[in-house]
Amino acid sequence: MANILIVFASDYGSTRKMAEALAEGVQSAGGTALVKEAEAATLDDLVAADGIALGSPVHMGGMDWRVKKFIDSHCSAAWMKNLLVGKAGAVFASGSGFGNGGGGVELTMLGMLTNLAELGLVILPLSKHLGGYAKAGLQWGPYGRAHNEDLSPKGLDDSQLEAARAHGANLARLAETLKNNKVFA
Amino acid sequence: MANILIVFASDYGSTRKMAEALAEGVQSAGGTALVKEAEAATLDDLVAADGIALGSPVHMGGMDWRVKKFIDSHCSAAWMKNLLVGKAGAVFASGSGFGNGGGGVELTMLGMLTNLAELGLVILPLSKHLGGYAKAGLQWGPYGRAHNEDLSPKGLDDSQLEAARAHGANLARLAETLKNNKVFA
Amino acid sequence: MANILIVFASDYGSTRKMAEALAEGVQSAGGTALVKEAEAATLDDLVAADGIALGSPVHMGGMDWRVKKFIDSHCSAAWMKNLLVGKAGAVFASGSGFGNGGGGVELTMLGMLTNLAELGLVILPLSKHLGGYAKAGLQWGPYGRAHNEDLSPKGLDDSQLEAARAHGANLARLAETLKNNKVFA
Amino acid sequence: MANILIVFASDYGSTRKMAEALAEGVQSAGGTALVKEAEAATLDDLVAADGIALGSPVHMGGMDWRVKKFIDSHCSAAWMKNLLVGKAGAVFASGSGFGNGGGGVELTMLGMLTNLAELGLVILPLSKHLGGYAKAGLQWGPYGRAHNEDLSPKGLDDSQLEAARAHGANLARLAETLKNNKVFA
Repeated sequence: MANILIVFASDYGSTRKMAEALAEGVQSAGGTALVKEAEAATLDDLVAADGIALGSPVHMGGMDWRVKKFIDSHCSAAWMKNLLVGKAGAVFASGSGFGNGGGGVELTMLGMLTNLAELGLVILPLSKHLGGYAKAGLQWGPYGRAHNEDLSPKGLDDSQLEAARAHGANLARLAETLKNNKVFA
Repeated sequence: MANILIVFASDYGSTRKMAEALAEGVQSAGGTALVKEAEAATLDDLVAADGIALGSPVHMGGMDWRVKKFIDSHCSAAWMKNLLVGKAGAVFASGSGFGNGGGGVELTMLGMLTNLAELGLVILPLSKHLGGYAKAGLQWGPYGRAHNEDLSPKGLDDSQLEAARAHGANLARLAETLKNNKVFA
Repeated sequence: MANILIVFASDYGSTRKMAEALAEGVQSAGGTALVKEAEAATLDDLVAADGIALGSPVHMGGMDWRVKKFIDSHCSAAWMKNLLVGKAGAVFASGSGFGNGGGGVELTMLGMLTNLAELGLVILPLSKHLGGYAKAGLQWGPYGRAHNEDLSPKGLDDSQLEAARAHGANLARLAETLKNNKVFA
Repeated sequence: MANILIVFASDYGSTRKMAEALAEGVQSAGGTALVKEAEAATLDDLVAADGIALGSPVHMGGMDWRVKKFIDSHCSAAWMKNLLVGKAGAVFASGSGFGNGGGGVELTMLGMLTNLAELGLVILPLSKHLGGYAKAGLQWGPYGRAHNEDLSPKGLDDSQLEAARAHGANLARLAETLKNNKVFA
């Protein structure tokens, strides 16, 4: 059974909802999910996990500074000692969707993924065949677009949370698989 | 009066329409626009221009290979000899918007922008205060999303072309300004 | 036993050497490697593979247009029908290293990785604990820097090829693992 | 005379040295430079500037969290009200260079540039013809690589600071030019 750590920051609750949907997906696949705000997560949490998901709202085209502080403070310590090599990694985000072109979510996700790659984590993409992709999909992970084009709030709908749940379930399976099969020599 | 070269590839016509809207914007600001398909544009076209715009549909999360062939064939020759340093540069794109999160347009635009930066071009962003941004905006340039979430075609609407026209007009002004004021020592 | 497809373009032979080193690594881990130039690789090659590696020289901050043509022509066909979901993916590159800061290799690798993510491939990072990383490492994959700071050629040294071999071996193991364990529901 | 704001974070002093070299370049071109640590810079500093440079060490493939906190706290406020549209922007970084492939500096710079683009700043590239490029150059801005391949510290040498000075001088000229010529309608 895979232990999945889900670390996030959230301002108005959309990223938190995405994090909780990922956790539901993890559990649906038989895993255990620990959902923690970025300011509370620790190095021990990272080490205890078989898979790690990072999530953030999009702020000025990048992740929330609290997620980056977690990365600089705790992930870098794990990197120094190669503590997480070969585990499973994934990202997710929420945002306003202003402009109708992602609003910077791609660089936001890549900013989190680069940290996961530095740590030696095997990265889970979001496949377009999954339920919910049409409303919540980027190849790098599920994106909960919570506003209309005009920036009026619309909240997350269930198909967006469905994509997050699918990503969580796949992450649990990938983490379990990697735990039982050594990939890195 | 600034000469602007607009190089693009297009499959079904959306990127072409964006290119033509940029050209209208250039002309509205008193500039001259030369619109060329990637396979027809040459090194001489680059050298003759005061400003350069590159546009592409999003294919598998990146620019159309014909635009990249133009870059590898002609831009690299200009790079070798520093022929374009200090001119103005901009990008634009079109895409399906499948997934509702940009569909890879951000890396597509960055893939074109990295070439412009290598050439020493000063890069024009798309400011969110411009008309049309809500429907066609990414900070890196105008994005003509031509499909609905379910991939059914919807075409470009006028607010998307409005963003492209604004970008063209701003590019003409930036190119004119840079032509008259030496920035690079 | 995993079948690994290695698709590349090469101008002066450095990327080819990296591709061949990856293939050696694949074989050392018990896999079978098919090394093909981008212009010769086909959709059937993709479908027959359990893992796929893409490699390119860095040209103007992005991948060689021939690799992109392969992506647009053949990977997009696989994407349409979800033919490659859940397989293993990896990237590698070579470049001049001019400027001493990667010379655009990161966006080059991300340009290939975005295609692999769109296809639903699970992505292998290059962990810093692997042999050769200090001379050939980026978290996204091995990088064969073949020139000195002043652009004079120096060729690839064995520690760079060592990193490529390690990446190939890990890719074979990841592909084998994913073949035997279904991650995507 | 252009006022340039230079905002940075630094751990061991390399990014600070780069910031100071940029400031020297600004002054050499007749501009005024205000160099501020990220935790001290304010919205008023941004508004008072004609040009803005952001600099950071590379931490886990991205900018220092203190720079991101500055962006989230102060740049986002300027973005809301379009306060900085049409000014000049630039980035710089320092890092270990571990792996010999940039070590994540490209995404680090793009993470800062996306914020500048969102703000509507015209972006200055680092042209390869400038002095110091061979040792300190990435197209997105000067990079002070302060370590050898084996991670042993080597400090910044003068050609790296020369690239930073050139970037500062060019930024001052670009900011002055844009101040006197309205680009954005």
